[in-house]
Amino acid sequence: MSNPTAAMLVIGDEILSGRTRDANMHYLAGQLAPRGIDLREVRIVTDQHDRIVVALNALRAEYDHVFTSGGIGPTHDDITADAVAAAFGVGVDIRDDARAILAEHYTRTGLELNAARLRMARIPDGARLIDNPVSSAPGFSIGNVHVMAGVPAVFQAMVAALLPGLAAGAALYAQNLTIPRGEGEIAADLKALAEGFPELSIGCYPFQRDGAFGATVVVRGEDKTRVDAALVKLAALFPEAVA
Amino acid sequence: MSNPTAAMLVIGDEILSGRTRDANMHYLAGQLAPRGIDLREVRIVTDQHDRIVVALNALRAEYDHVFTSGGIGPTHDDITADAVAAAFGVGVDIRDDARAILAEHYTRTGLELNAARLRMARIPDGARLIDNPVSSAPGFSIGNVHVMAGVPAVFQAMVAALLPGLAAGAALYAQNLTIPRGEGEIAADLKALAEGFPELSIGCYPFQRDGAFGATVVVRGEDKTRVDAALVKLAALFPEAVA
Repeated sequence: MSNPTAAMLVIGDEILSGRTRDANMHYLAGQLAPRGIDLREVRIVTDQHDRIVVALNALRAEYDHVFTSGGIGPTHDDITADAVAAAFGVGVDIRDDARAILAEHYTRTGLELNAARLRMARIPDGARLIDNPVSSAPGFSIGNVHVMAGVPAVFQAMVAALLPGLAAGAALYAQNLTIPRGEGEIAADLKALAEGFPELSIGCYPFQRDGAFGATVVVRGEDKTRVDAALVKLAALFPEAVA
Repeated sequence: MSNPTAAMLVIGDEILSGRTRDANMHYLAGQLAPRGIDLREVRIVTDQHDRIVVALNALRAEYDHVFTSGGIGPTHDDITADAVAAAFGVGVDIRDDARAILAEHYTRTGLELNAARLRMARIPDGARLIDNPVSSAPGFSIGNVHVMAGVPAVFQAMVAALLPGLAAGAALYAQNLTIPRGEGEIAADLKALAEGFPELSIGCYPFQRDGAFGATVVVRGEDKTRVDAALVKLAALFPEAVA
């Protein structure tokens, strides 16, 4: 049985403009890997209705799950809920359960549940709410699409609420070794190693540190015994490597 | 005349697995914006031949430029040059000019130009080389696709070599104000402001700091006079805002 697959769609003018460095993608990737949900693709698109619809329909047809971030706040540029509804061909309106959550929150905090804030209760028909313990305005899941906020603290809280309810896969077992040599010197041995362990994923990630080149070799696989065997071979080939 | 458009394709198993947080996308976005080249979409795909080919063909058909990062080193998992050649339907082989660059570099550094390192001289037919002053192995441009390394220091050096040769657009003029209030309180005024300045892009980016909610409003446009006029209105609406 193969692992569930996933994609992420970032609705992100502020990332594409260079103003903000995305944090949610890296966070989500780190949460999915240990659950055996394979993040296969990420797309970042502008805050434009048609762009969101097209990307969402492409991704939800191809992967088991699509996680989105951004565009579900109260302002005029928050258009994700409407775009998601359009992608699914369903209606979207203020929903009583979402409104009740907001009403409780704003009563408690002494703020007004005004028209702008009520926009955050607009939920596509048939969606299930995702809890937001940080600022109350919910995310939602519809079909295999999970719609979450862009503010990192809220995104992370929604991911924490959502993931335990999704079927997990087999987490890949991973080990790595860092070799203080340029990739070009270790490439032939690595290639031979990869050919000897065709069931493993053996990646080589070069870096520069204090002017010197090095490479981190990451070995991943479902079978711990085989990953460890590959690591032993790798360590024998490069005695100067460090874990 | 509208600005040149751009997309980025990150070849990035290590990013999708959560091991590495991408830095190149944020760097590129920051370099393109002041040149008036509009970054409209980013895709991150796994290090798989077919994934790279499909994404590259989709993006190069839609945008004026496609910038890629990753997968052009000497190891077995570096498959970008072959995937790019396949996407364009051209051949790929070791090319004399690229080989000469590598030979000079490895002679100078006293290292062997072995078979693995020679892989970095594999260039798709018809491509133009992109200079790499950091570690010599070149990137390349073919058609509207610019293929660069994943190591951030090398990626940045290649971007610096490449961008002066690309036609620039009109850089958007941008100003921002940070308002120490929740988005929900300022949304109605912002919407009215956006309607009064339909030619401007007015984005609202909420944040949480020390437990309090705030929002940064970013106003962008080609006409400095109009952006400044919108800022004056915004500052009058929210006297507590700070630049």
